[in-house]
Amino acid sequence: MAAPVALIQGASRGLGLAFCKHILKNKPPAAVIATCRNPDGAAALRDLAGDHPGRLTVLQLDVNREDDIRGAAARIKESFSRLDLIVNSSAMLHPTGKGETSLRDVTAQGIISTLTTNTVGPLVMAKYFAPLLQKGGGGFGQQATEKAKQHSGIIVNITAKVGSIGDNALGGWYSYRMSKAALNMATRNLSIELGRSRPKVVCVSLHPGTVNTDLSRPYHRNVPQNKLFSTELSVNCLMSIIDTLNMEKTGKAYSWDGTELPW
Amino acid sequence: MAAPVALIQGASRGLGLAFCKHILKNKPPAAVIATCRNPDGAAALRDLAGDHPGRLTVLQLDVNREDDIRGAAARIKESFSRLDLIVNSSAMLHPTGKGETSLRDVTAQGIISTLTTNTVGPLVMAKYFAPLLQKGGGGFGQQATEKAKQHSGIIVNITAKVGSIGDNALGGWYSYRMSKAALNMATRNLSIELGRSRPKVVCVSLHPGTVNTDLSRPYHRNVPQNKLFSTELSVNCLMSIIDTLNMEKTGKAYSWDGTELPW
Ligand SMILES: NC(=O)c1ccc[n+]([C@@H]2O[C@H](COP(=O)([O-])OP(=O)(O)OC[C@H]3O[C@@H](n4cnc5c(N)ncnc54)[C@H](OP(=O)(O)O)[C@@H]3O)[C@@H](O)[C@H]2O)c1
Ligand SMILES: NC(=O)c1ccc[n+]([C@@H]2O[C@H](COP(=O)([O-])OP(=O)(O)OC[C@H]3O[C@@H](n4cnc5c(N)ncnc54)[C@H](OP(=O)(O)O)[C@@H]3O)[C@@H](O)[C@H]2O)c1
Repeated sequence: MAAPVALIQGASRGLGLAFCKHILKNKPPAAVIATCRNPDGAAALRDLAGDHPGRLTVLQLDVNREDDIRGAAARIKESFSRLDLIVNSSAMLHPTGKGETSLRDVTAQGIISTLTTNTVGPLVMAKYFAPLLQKGGGGFGQQATEKAKQHSGIIVNITAKVGSIGDNALGGWYSYRMSKAALNMATRNLSIELGRSRPKVVCVSLHPGTVNTDLSRPYHRNVPQNKLFSTELSVNCLMSIIDTLNMEKTGKAYSWDGTELPW
Repeated sequence: MAAPVALIQGASRGLGLAFCKHILKNKPPAAVIATCRNPDGAAALRDLAGDHPGRLTVLQLDVNREDDIRGAAARIKESFSRLDLIVNSSAMLHPTGKGETSLRDVTAQGIISTLTTNTVGPLVMAKYFAPLLQKGGGGFGQQATEKAKQHSGIIVNITAKVGSIGDNALGGWYSYRMSKAALNMATRNLSIELGRSRPKVVCVSLHPGTVNTDLSRPYHRNVPQNKLFSTELSVNCLMSIIDTLNMEKTGKAYSWDGTELPW
């Protein structure tokens, strides 16, 4: 069987970068395709490619640009002809770097930018990459024994607990919360459409916990030390979940500890 | 006590127009402010103004334009100095008039337009009109006896059952479903922020049923005759719900029959 292929979208930093490292280290001989906006500036990815000769491909992809996504899909089709896993990791809290604390901070432009990157991007990714996932070898997750229930690929959309409408008791962060709630709807819709197809593709939303990255940096001082995960720890947890995914678990949102998140 | 004031946003046609008619007919002496993109083309609103002299004000407002919203808020502040109810009714299924049947139909531009009108618009409305609702007289809904639990105003965001992530078993209609899921998150967030304020503003999402309007027209032949509501019937049901709203019911989504919708 050919080596599994994973595409990590938003891989220059933070959790995306940690996903690349984790798969290269723990899932040989899997190949990793890392996409980011500016490969020339992505020194960490270049180093990683050096450490794992022939296993890491870096491609340019701004998730806000449908042309970039279409182009990357065409190149991957040529070189790999299939995919087993996509992780959509890129996101922002808000163009200002801080979530809105109240309605006063809300602007149309701020919400639209956040929705475009966090929500529209991952769905347009699914549009162009679903055909490649349908040609995947099911190299990630746990295959069902029954052939009709097996999956060829997996889409993971990185969501956030604050994107759960039912769990929301604090308010604030309008743009980010709305973008993740809408992303969860995309996950659900994708799981239905790609669950009907043959071969089938699993699609889930995963919440990584509160993780020590640039995105959460403005809020680190409010987080108790033992609640602020390293990217390694978070990705370890998330990969343990991914390792158990199958068609029975599709269309849901899970937290880093495997518990299901309410919508 | 001064007459209650209701603002109906997206009032040129469909449910928005029916809300105006209903309130003018059944809630005298309440005043209605109807907003629409093109008042000159809104013959039905002009007729209605003639039938109810002095009770209906028509204002221009494209919910995609933050300037229009800011301007309308300033004019209403001047003329009415307060509001008791806002209904955000405007929405579209998709710029093409048809929801996506599959991923193939998804385009970044289509999702962004739909999100901008259906989701961003109502939230930016809340931003500019919350101060006027906080000066409202609580003329709609059911007032709590305990003073601290009373509300001064109500925001109703018209959602859709297909915007419920948990209820989604069919898929499709990516843009519209995502826009309403994100709108439900906005409702939830608003209910929290405006539930902390004094005076308090109630905020809910309401699903009108499947209603005989232009929006649903492409799908009418799939709907059993007795399941396709007239706008009058739907607004009757929705106003019965609005009549019972208070701070205990804030932050939720209800269907036309009063049942709570899952997120
Ligand atoms: N950190 C947390 O506590 C936390 C909690 C819950 C959920 N999450 C979620 O976890 C995921 C990863 O976040 P993180 O914490 O790793 O954030 P991060 O360290 O700030 O990294 C964000 C990544 O997104 C990329 N990105 C932003 N806009 C992009 C675009 N238009 N196209 C392509 N890439 C783009 C950035 O690339 P550049 O280097 O080019 O800017 C960067 O690689 C996000 O979905 C986030 O919402 C994080
Ligand atoms: N009909 C149904 O079966 C159904 C089911 C579930 C939920 N809903 C919801 O019910 C609400 C009302 O829909 P409807 O069925 O009454 O639809 P409709 O008859 O198509 O009316 C849509 C209204 O939205 C307005 N609008 C569109 N874009 C706008 C913008 N940028 N700024 C201001 N107004 C704008 C339109 O104004 P113009 O005249 O200027 O175009 C029109 O007044 C929507 O939120 C819809 O999602 C409807």
